[in-house]
Amino acid sequence: MEHTFVLKGNFIYSQDEKHLKLEEQGYLVCEEGISGGIYRELPERYAHLPVTDHGDALILPGLCDLHAHAPQYAMRANGMDMELLDWLNTYTFPVESRYGDMEYARAAYGQYAEALRESATTRACIFGTLHREGTLLLMELLEEAGIRGYVGKVNMDRNSPDYLREESAKSALADTERWIEESGRFTKLRPILTPRFIPSCSDELMRGLARIQRETGLPVQSHLSENLSEIAWVRELCPKAEHYGDAYDKLGLFGSNGRAVMAHCVHSPRKELELMKERGVFVAHCAQSNMNLSSGAAPVRTYLQEGLSMGLGSDVAGGYSVSIFRAMSDSIQASKLRWRLKDEGLAPLSVEEAFYLGTLGGGAFFGKVGSFEEGYELDAVVIDDSRFLPPHMLSLRERLERVIYLSDERDIVGKYVSGEKVV
Amino acid sequence: MEHTFVLKGNFIYSQDEKHLKLEEQGYLVCEEGISGGIYRELPERYAHLPVTDHGDALILPGLCDLHAHAPQYAMRANGMDMELLDWLNTYTFPVESRYGDMEYARAAYGQYAEALRESATTRACIFGTLHREGTLLLMELLEEAGIRGYVGKVNMDRNSPDYLREESAKSALADTERWIEESGRFTKLRPILTPRFIPSCSDELMRGLARIQRETGLPVQSHLSENLSEIAWVRELCPKAEHYGDAYDKLGLFGSNGRAVMAHCVHSPRKELELMKERGVFVAHCAQSNMNLSSGAAPVRTYLQEGLSMGLGSDVAGGYSVSIFRAMSDSIQASKLRWRLKDEGLAPLSVEEAFYLGTLGGGAFFGKVGSFEEGYELDAVVIDDSRFLPPHMLSLRERLERVIYLSDERDIVGKYVSGEKVV
Repeated sequence: MEHTFVLKGNFIYSQDEKHLKLEEQGYLVCEEGISGGIYRELPERYAHLPVTDHGDALILPGLCDLHAHAPQYAMRANGMDMELLDWLNTYTFPVESRYGDMEYARAAYGQYAEALRESATTRACIFGTLHREGTLLLMELLEEAGIRGYVGKVNMDRNSPDYLREESAKSALADTERWIEESGRFTKLRPILTPRFIPSCSDELMRGLARIQRETGLPVQSHLSENLSEIAWVRELCPKAEHYGDAYDKLGLFGSNGRAVMAHCVHSPRKELELMKERGVFVAHCAQSNMNLSSGAAPVRTYLQEGLSMGLGSDVAGGYSVSIFRAMSDSIQASKLRWRLKDEGLAPLSVEEAFYLGTLGGGAFFGKVGSFEEGYELDAVVIDDSRFLPPHMLSLRERLERVIYLSDERDIVGKYVSGEKVV
Repeated sequence: MEHTFVLKGNFIYSQDEKHLKLEEQGYLVCEEGISGGIYRELPERYAHLPVTDHGDALILPGLCDLHAHAPQYAMRANGMDMELLDWLNTYTFPVESRYGDMEYARAAYGQYAEALRESATTRACIFGTLHREGTLLLMELLEEAGIRGYVGKVNMDRNSPDYLREESAKSALADTERWIEESGRFTKLRPILTPRFIPSCSDELMRGLARIQRETGLPVQSHLSENLSEIAWVRELCPKAEHYGDAYDKLGLFGSNGRAVMAHCVHSPRKELELMKERGVFVAHCAQSNMNLSSGAAPVRTYLQEGLSMGLGSDVAGGYSVSIFRAMSDSIQASKLRWRLKDEGLAPLSVEEAFYLGTLGGGAFFGKVGSFEEGYELDAVVIDDSRFLPPHMLSLRERLERVIYLSDERDIVGKYVSGEKVV
């Protein structure tokens, strides 16, 4: 049977938001890409399976990135001195317009796909650009890199520069339907409907996307309540909407017909949260981006308490790092500053909570992903932390904390996605 | 003549807080370890000097770390879920007590010295532990690693656990004087007086250190106004002091007899700042540590406006990274969150300002350090940024921004300290 084997090593995964499961020198069974659970001793019925012994390495679930812009990887860590709307116009849109050139797209997307391959990320929700062919190329390169998840051709037909705007809602929708059809050839990456955000999409375009969603059942990704000027703009554009989320909802793109993930939610009012909870809309929490673009720090403690679906996003390139370990440590740091500077009623995130968000929390968007419990898809990363072990002994929990803060792609010595070995 | 040569490459350094000097494919002259300035064409009088051509690499001044605890490197990225005082008692003091064991000290300090050698840091102010021999070993290892600056044997004779406390003020002072004498054998590292902080030092010990300072002219390093509980404790301990800084000042250790650098200053009241300015006391701004330990975010904009002497500190291991590039990006991020969450009157730091603080700003503590202007000591790092160049062209300023956010020790291909090649 393909993708059927046993891994031996030190396993760490989230039992729930607050608790880790730690298994020193255990056996993880993978049957046709699905976890058969972790055992202290390998049961007799699995004795015939090939065992890969990863020694003293740590084996964690693959990480999940709920929000990233692949084309912006080429401009990461540049232009970080602006807020969202100026940053989009000055830096982002000019760079995204380059992806009409397939030579540029191949070089730049190639760098991004390679970075993801080398990272601990196994699943992702990724924005392309409005270019159909470029977005197909991105899907091809990510598929080669072993990444699973969703990629979206971006829709934007208004309030965008001439050089980066779809001609009309009608042509945008036709192009999107053609792209969906053409992306049928991929097996690991699937299309996701991707209106950039309310300001850049006409009502006609949004209604058309909602129709496509009803017809195809595809999920939706977009942005929500990231920056104060953006929110004020949405209020002007949609005077009848009660809040930003309601603007999506009125147009049928807020989880009423299928899964939706919204990036940021830094300044979401209570009613917006309630609607997200009702609709099962996922929050992609992008702490680094929210610091870089001076957007603020989302009240993640509230979202956890309210039981919202939530995961972490790198938000490349509002964030400059593809690493979801970095997203974990950034989300902890941002929550600490928010606690100290703004609201001591909302406790900072713990290591356990940040790890949960980057694995099981975000993994839920992709199905049964982000855990080693029996029945979950087998995504795993094997981490050799010997580069930063101190002279004294550490517990597995202490080693995990160090991996979150200190590890990078050099430390990843193995990676499995749905049981397929990709590194 | 030793340490006399020419470097060719792309030079970037701070003209002042707000302005960079950029020289594409220029020549930097080094005469006996001192900069002879940068030239677009190499003057005839230097034509006989050996030229090292660093191609398209970036050449920056060596970075300056104004605050780090070498023994804590072994526990970095562990125990980040506590505030200062609990963290000290639970994690830090037990680890520091290990440095009485010279075998442990050699292993752990060896890792730290190697990390500094590989980093872009050329100058540092570093805390050891209270152990004299361990601190001498640290100086030896840092000297071998080519680092220049100051190392302090820590003084602490009260409010500390039995296993990590000097027996008496008298024995602490005798031990300190012996350590100063014994460290006379080092040429790159010099001793710095290091009372841990007010709570852990008796008045008798502090007065004795002030006497040593008057006699030796040595500089002083300590902690100031980092955490709210710590500040409240100092207020209890020193009811006559007007503020935390005044407590040091009344004991003669606040820059009245020589240079002093105080880490953190997150919650310094106005009078404390005024006294620091009057006394020329340096602020070591440690943004990452202040996030990790939930201390807050120092108002660095105020400190810049007031013209305080200031540089950056890694604060290993309140901070988990030795990198002063990381300290630059963290100080920008923290200032952005502070601006958004607490005080929109204080603008976030720019790339230029953060770079200034990590080079020329902190460099002033060490003398003429942190610039390539003629007359400065020649500290330089050569950075090959090709690992993260995008498919499109970048300006030198854009490349610097990326180095600050994206580079790590892998990208450092050359390093000079006072004209001595150490990498």
